[in-house]
Amino acid sequence: MISLEEKFGALETENAPGQESLQYTGDLNSLMRGEKLEGKSVDFSHGDVDAFPPAPGSETAWKDGFEMGGQQAYTEYRGAAQIREGLAERLTTFTGKPISAGKELIITPGTQGALFLALGTTVASGTKVAVVEPDYFANRKLVKFFGGELVPIPLHYQGDQSDNGPDLKRLETAAKSGTGVFVFSTPNNPTGLVYSGSSIESISELAARYHVTVIVDQLYSRMLYSGETYTHLWACDNQPENLITIMGPSKTESLSGFRLGVAFGTSSLIERMERLQAIVSLRAAGYNQKVLDTWFQEPAGWMKKRIQEHEAIRDDLLGIFRAAAFPCFTPQAGSYLFPRLPALDVDHHTFVRLLRHQAGITVTPGTEFAPGYADSIRLNFSQDHATAVAAAERIVEMVNIYRK
Amino acid sequence: MISLEEKFGALETENAPGQESLQYTGDLNSLMRGEKLEGKSVDFSHGDVDAFPPAPGSETAWKDGFEMGGQQAYTEYRGAAQIREGLAERLTTFTGKPISAGKELIITPGTQGALFLALGTTVASGTKVAVVEPDYFANRKLVKFFGGELVPIPLHYQGDQSDNGPDLKRLETAAKSGTGVFVFSTPNNPTGLVYSGSSIESISELAARYHVTVIVDQLYSRMLYSGETYTHLWACDNQPENLITIMGPSKTESLSGFRLGVAFGTSSLIERMERLQAIVSLRAAGYNQKVLDTWFQEPAGWMKKRIQEHEAIRDDLLGIFRAAAFPCFTPQAGSYLFPRLPALDVDHHTFVRLLRHQAGITVTPGTEFAPGYADSIRLNFSQDHATAVAAAERIVEMVNIYRK
Repeated sequence: MISLEEKFGALETENAPGQESLQYTGDLNSLMRGEKLEGKSVDFSHGDVDAFPPAPGSETAWKDGFEMGGQQAYTEYRGAAQIREGLAERLTTFTGKPISAGKELIITPGTQGALFLALGTTVASGTKVAVVEPDYFANRKLVKFFGGELVPIPLHYQGDQSDNGPDLKRLETAAKSGTGVFVFSTPNNPTGLVYSGSSIESISELAARYHVTVIVDQLYSRMLYSGETYTHLWACDNQPENLITIMGPSKTESLSGFRLGVAFGTSSLIERMERLQAIVSLRAAGYNQKVLDTWFQEPAGWMKKRIQEHEAIRDDLLGIFRAAAFPCFTPQAGSYLFPRLPALDVDHHTFVRLLRHQAGITVTPGTEFAPGYADSIRLNFSQDHATAVAAAERIVEMVNIYRK
Repeated sequence: MISLEEKFGALETENAPGQESLQYTGDLNSLMRGEKLEGKSVDFSHGDVDAFPPAPGSETAWKDGFEMGGQQAYTEYRGAAQIREGLAERLTTFTGKPISAGKELIITPGTQGALFLALGTTVASGTKVAVVEPDYFANRKLVKFFGGELVPIPLHYQGDQSDNGPDLKRLETAAKSGTGVFVFSTPNNPTGLVYSGSSIESISELAARYHVTVIVDQLYSRMLYSGETYTHLWACDNQPENLITIMGPSKTESLSGFRLGVAFGTSSLIERMERLQAIVSLRAAGYNQKVLDTWFQEPAGWMKKRIQEHEAIRDDLLGIFRAAAFPCFTPQAGSYLFPRLPALDVDHHTFVRLLRHQAGITVTPGTEFAPGYADSIRLNFSQDHATAVAAAERIVEMVNIYRK
């Protein structure tokens, strides 16, 4: 039996994005070489919603919700029926397969909320859960919190393109040996790798054959760069019995301040998720839910422009890191870069803290995404273009200062 | 080991407030005696924020938050530091004992969110948790969800006033036999009983002596009726090592549509709660947090008026139910009434469904608050005064139709 001490030890958040201000910095002056580097501070731990402001119409939609009064303040736990109806229609168009607004969709407090509910309804003490490495840090924490057992599945992204994707052999071995749940993000957080159509079809088929519940986090699936294609597991022919897809408007659409997400999939799981939501936080904030009416119906050209702007930043940052010979996968979607740094005179965790202290740059250490990625850092490059470029150059400068 | 089936069976929400539209009604026409009763529909399962609108300034405060942009969208998981500082000061004044904004306070997605985090950080598999009967329905559900064992503590409210309050002997017996956590609401939900100063002091002393963690839900503590006094466990002399107090502006202040709550207490528990929040939903919606700046500093006279208006409704409803000889405790605070109904020809659950179907009145069945309260119903009387009075009269009429 896991004790509460252990349980909460595993939930350590000091290195989690956004919590860096809580870190100990007392030792850094003695470790620092040279002076502080000049330049505008950048927090790459999350997107800058001032540089890329909330999608148009969100404020007005919120106000409409507020003015609706009680009806919008107290929705069903799974979210207001009328909002779910519109969403189900637009998500059906997006994914290519019908979604029932009444049975197969729930509105949650952020995509994080959806992930919590999805794992909370499928993982019990002893459940074996296949988790990709590297992948979103909360996946591992959630599995541990619910008493599950981690079964790591490596993600190939550092070698030849033909090998890219999750290790399907390892996944099949895991499925054969009693793995009950598989959770992963595509586009992958932190690398920006989009699972290929054949990977997704194999996962679907494998999960169906071995009765594995699949939870797929598609948070970044709308920000797809030129020439890339996206495959929705939800629309595959050979479906697992239990499948939950989660999404939300917090990233590409910069609506994180509203804490909105959705999950859609197998109705019995959606129903359980609602039961859990009832004791977790009742519902996504009522007035905020109304903002989902603007989602997937932004003004013409808005999304295209937002993607182009991010692609331009991606390309510049990739250019800078590659010129410095940092291996870096080219993200196919989303706004994360996950470069690998060379060997340094300080350990990489200390380097991350020095980056913040000496160069005003906050990044997330690779170890948040899996053990064994200490030499990588994650940057959310949804930032002011020029500021991001200058900061990337400072990262290279910092690496040169501390290089072994 | 509890299975997921059992776990979610215990979280059934069909009778939970706000979920009534999901109930089966197909059998009701055959059970119904006479015609439908005319009158305006009332949903007593929660307060009507159209009748009692959100506290002044909430919309403006939200807009300020939205305009602050990224800084307010991405706060620390425990909530924006500046907002916590103001809150800590005002809650210190309210409770009479200092609260540290940095260490002892967390902003949560509603009071429900605070309760979930508080129990999630203190209850593990096998933890014995003393739960009052009757009390807020989620307490029991949460204990079961986290694998804890319920130790029921009766609340006396139906007899002589001198006996009113939790059964302290039962609580001491529970504490002696290894109960680790005690959770309760004061004012009690559903009865509106305020724990006396001597009850609170005894609980504090007893919890200190037997190392019991105390979680006290004070959601309704601001709406205190004339002549009543309130005692904060947080300010007692003899303190338990581990104490969490939870509150929020969802009820008296009608800010439920923002999903905001707070918890304050033992710093190590607040820290754990933040770790849990990080994987549950990250934070209370950023822009919404700003609305807490208006809390505990409403315009002069606003709160007094709101209390008087509720007291007037309370008195009229008590008059109606007592004239019909339904025993009903006089709520000392909050906006709940918990009358006991006489024996009927239909079981009380069916009566509750008939009330909704035939008389347009939604109430919450007593069994949501503890087994053994099937003959009681809970009404949130934070409603339009005249509508509430007319509905209470219809409840009496309905009882007379189905009386045994």
